[in-house]
Amino acid sequence: MLLYHDTRAPNPRRVRMFLAEKGLTGEVDFIEVSINDRAHEQPAYLEKNPLALVPVLELGDGRLLRESIAICRYLEELHPEPALFGTDTWSRAQIEQWNRHAELELLFPVAQVFRNSHPFWLGRIRQAPEFAEIMREHLARRFAWLDRELADRPWLAGDTFSVADITALCAIDFGKISQIRVGEDTPHLARWYAEMKARPSYKA
Amino acid sequence: MLLYHDTRAPNPRRVRMFLAEKGLTGEVDFIEVSINDRAHEQPAYLEKNPLALVPVLELGDGRLLRESIAICRYLEELHPEPALFGTDTWSRAQIEQWNRHAELELLFPVAQVFRNSHPFWLGRIRQAPEFAEIMREHLARRFAWLDRELADRPWLAGDTFSVADITALCAIDFGKISQIRVGEDTPHLARWYAEMKARPSYKA
Repeated sequence: MLLYHDTRAPNPRRVRMFLAEKGLTGEVDFIEVSINDRAHEQPAYLEKNPLALVPVLELGDGRLLRESIAICRYLEELHPEPALFGTDTWSRAQIEQWNRHAELELLFPVAQVFRNSHPFWLGRIRQAPEFAEIMREHLARRFAWLDRELADRPWLAGDTFSVADITALCAIDFGKISQIRVGEDTPHLARWYAEMKARPSYKA
Repeated sequence: MLLYHDTRAPNPRRVRMFLAEKGLTGEVDFIEVSINDRAHEQPAYLEKNPLALVPVLELGDGRLLRESIAICRYLEELHPEPALFGTDTWSRAQIEQWNRHAELELLFPVAQVFRNSHPFWLGRIRQAPEFAEIMREHLARRFAWLDRELADRPWLAGDTFSVADITALCAIDFGKISQIRVGEDTPHLARWYAEMKARPSYKA
């Protein structure tokens, strides 16, 4: 399998962390598609993904799969252990709920702050700095909410580490480039973040 | 089961259409949480969902499940037929990819146009009209892309109707309030849209 990725973008990192947690990193060849060099906009890559997004998984027979979570679900079916999407109907539902919360309430706003206010995108895309400010305010509220949620359980979806924790970690780390950080005002979130950093998959 | 929903919001409609396609509408009691009346911000509802979002599914034993797609996946496990998330590893991966495309490339931008430019939200939330314009431009490109995709297959994820079609339909219909419509310049998308409107679940 080939994984087209960018080393600094959050969505490919979700897949790399997922592979590391599964012990599958060695099964995949990684091909860098540098967003900084606009490699994702070149015709060769647009044949892999007309939306110009990373990551893409390419199978041995040439089939292509886009979208980080579609790739992770596919890998989970092929390699069920350790289960990162749950082990029964209710745990799967809870993990799906929390993965979506991590994505929609954290990763999406963090990405919009970056896109709409960071100099990296100046001259590359049209920016709306006011929307970045709205998303910054949103994230402060969501960090406080997540801190309350993590006061009485170890992981986002409950007692078990899951793909939802991977999504949240990639979101929070991607905030650093926009000076969004987990602070001392959210001690439970900080505890969770420290535990995430201690996992070997953190370096993926 | 109880479903807390708003009759005009797109995410609860995804669940209602899903229930209709499964023949399960009669199994659920529906409780209106009117966003227009700010019922979603009242303490009674915040106990169901601290994020003040609809829909929420409440089971007979009081367990709560948030997020439209988490609810749909849960229902799919309980009632596998007709399968709307795929029938084998690859079809499940493809449907997940396309459902995410429908959500991230259509539903999310449509919702942001509405939130950031529609008078409904004046005085309710802080708006960034420039971001709404960016999302309108994005949607025009995505409608053209989807038109090309639908030129040679009946449904978003291939030969079989799936949850991805439900998501895309709810996104496109939610665009109407912001004067975003499928036009004659995208004939394949218009063909798909006409077929969606002909399904009994469209009225859900």
